Amino acid sequence: MRSQYINELKDLKVKLLKMGAMVQDIIEVSVQALAKQDLMMAKRVYKLDDDIDVLELEIEEECMRLIALQQPMAKDLRTIGTIMKIITDLERMGDHAVNIAKVTLEIGDEPLIKPLIDIPRMARLTEDMVKKSLDAFMAEDIELAEEVAHDDDKVDAIYEAIYKELIEMMIENPKLVSQSIRLLFIGRYLERIADHTTNIGERVIYMVTGERIEIN
Amino acid sequence: MRSQYINELKDLKVKLLKMGAMVQDIIEVSVQALAKQDLMMAKRVYKLDDDIDVLELEIEEECMRLIALQQPMAKDLRTIGTIMKIITDLERMGDHAVNIAKVTLEIGDEPLIKPLIDIPRMARLTEDMVKKSLDAFMAEDIELAEEVAHDDDKVDAIYEAIYKELIEMMIENPKLVSQSIRLLFIGRYLERIADHTTNIGERVIYMVTGERIEIN
Repeated sequence: MRSQYINELKDLKVKLLKMGAMVQDIIEVSVQALAKQDLMMAKRVYKLDDDIDVLELEIEEECMRLIALQQPMAKDLRTIGTIMKIITDLERMGDHAVNIAKVTLEIGDEPLIKPLIDIPRMARLTEDMVKKSLDAFMAEDIELAEEVAHDDDKVDAIYEAIYKELIEMMIENPKLVSQSIRLLFIGRYLERIADHTTNIGERVIYMVTGERIEIN
Repeated sequence: MRSQYINELKDLKVKLLKMGAMVQDIIEVSVQALAKQDLMMAKRVYKLDDDIDVLELEIEEECMRLIALQQPMAKDLRTIGTIMKIITDLERMGDHAVNIAKVTLEIGDEPLIKPLIDIPRMARLTEDMVKKSLDAFMAEDIELAEEVAHDDDKVDAIYEAIYKELIEMMIENPKLVSQSIRLLFIGRYLERIADHTTNIGERVIYMVTGERIEIN
C-alpha cells in the first residue's frame, strides 16, 4: 500500500512539474507577444491556457482519488493538499497570462509608447519564481520557499517603478493615457503572478512545518 | 458510513456558508471604508481577512479528512472537490478586499475626486453574486449558477464605464491621475471578485453535470 502510494505521488509530482513548465511558457509567450506586437502569438496564449486548465483538472482528480484510496494521514495528507493548492495557483497564473494577451490584442498594432524593458524583466523574474517555488516543493526546502518572497519584493519594486514612470508619462502627455493604463495593467498582472508564486512558497512552508505563515 | 458521511458533509456546508457570509461582509466593509474614508474601518478589513484564512484552512482539512475516511466516489467526490475549489475562490475574494483596503489607506484623507456611486453599486452586485453562487451550490441549481455569469456581465459593464470616466478625468486634469488610477484599481479588484463568483458558478455546473464549461 505504502509503496503504491509513493509511486502514485511520484506520478503526481511529475505532472505538477509539467504544469509548472507550461505556466513558465505561457508567461513567456504572453509577454513576447506584447513585446513583438505579434497578435497571432497573443491568440496562442488562449490555447496554452486551455491545456493548463485540462491538466489542472486531471491532477486534481488524481489527488482526490489518491486520498480516497490510500487514506494518507498527517504529513502525507498535507503534501496532497499542497499539490491541490499549487495547481490552483498555477491555473490562476495562466489566467493572468490570458489577461496579458487580451491587453496585447487591445493594443493591437498601435505603436508602443515606450521601449519595453521592465515588463520583460518582470516576466523573467516571475518565470524564475514559478520554477523556484516548485523546486522548493519538490525538495521540501523552506529556505528556497522563503527566497521566493524576497524575489517578490524585487518584482514589486519594478512594478512600482513602472507605475511611477507611466503616471508621469500620462501627466505630461494625456494622449498616452489609454496605452499607459494598458501597460500598467500588464505590470499588475505580472505582479499578481508573482504573488501566486509566493502563495506556493507559503504553502510549502506549511507542508513542511505544519505552520501557516505569511512571508510577505 | 453513508449517514455519517451525509452528516459531516452537512457540517461542511454550514461552514462554507459561514465563509461566504464573511466574504460578503469583507467586501461591504472594504468599500464602506473607502466611501466614508474611514481608515480604522479599512484596517479592520485585514483582521476580517485573517478570520477568513483560518476558516479556509479548517474547511480544507475537513474536506481531506472526509475524503480519506469516507472514500466517497464519483458525484460525492466531485462535491467535496467543489467545496475545496469554492473556498479557494472565497479566500481570494478576501485578498481583493484587502487590496481595496490598502488603496483606501493610500488615499488616506485626501478628498475623493468624485462622488462614489458606481463602486458601491459594483460592491453590492458582487456581494449578491457571492450569495447566489453559494445558493446555486447548495441547491445544485445550474440555472442559478448560470445567472451568476449574467450578473458578471453587468459588473463588467459598470467597470468599463468607470474606466472610461476616469480616463477622461485624467486627460482633462492631470492632477487627478494618481487618485484616478487608485479608484481604477479598486474597480478592477471588484471586477476580479465577481470573476471568482463566476468560477464558483462554473464549478457548480461541473459538480452537477460532470462537464467542464466556461460560462463567460
